[in-house]
Amino acid sequence: MYGLQGRFTAQPGKGDELAALLLEAANAMRRLDDCLLYVIGRVPGEPDAVLVYEVWTSSEAHAASLDNEETKAAIARGRPLIAGMSDRVEFEPAGGKGL
Amino acid sequence: MYGLQGRFTAQPGKGDELAALLLEAANAMRRLDDCLLYVIGRVPGEPDAVLVYEVWTSSEAHAASLDNEETKAAIARGRPLIAGMSDRVEFEPAGGKGL
Repeated sequence: MYGLQGRFTAQPGKGDELAALLLEAANAMRRLDDCLLYVIGRVPGEPDAVLVYEVWTSSEAHAASLDNEETKAAIARGRPLIAGMSDRVEFEPAGGKGL
Repeated sequence: MYGLQGRFTAQPGKGDELAALLLEAANAMRRLDDCLLYVIGRVPGEPDAVLVYEVWTSSEAHAASLDNEETKAAIARGRPLIAGMSDRVEFEPAGGKGL
């Protein structure tokens, strides 16, 4: 398995719009068997922050997902909303509830 | 829903032991309907790091889980293995695959 977590900071005032776009992308992942978790979080008191937590069957499966046309289109729509990314951690999921 | 993510740093050389203990706790959460996700992660190249990612139906449900005897016993066993906690973020899960 392969895990990736991180935080997007939206352009000021664009947090809701970015979160909605990422949530749409996260829900589109439901049909990909190689995507095990793709959860979007908001941070109380930080309206421009959007957290993403992903678990995939492998890093190759994750990389392949970035290459499909639908994902590329979503990334293109999201880019103008994003001021920065931080707290990015690649990890090895060890298990637990949800996996 | 209520989300909590964070990083434990184990005492030097105790990462595997701490991860195993947290994984046992994470698997015990499978029988709690109020616990939606409880995933343990390891970080390549950082053997003393253990990541935890939790989603609960409510903050009250999470707080109640800390109060049961089994959890208290696990915390007592884990405490000597832990050097520190960091990157703690409470968040509002917005949805996505896995929720």
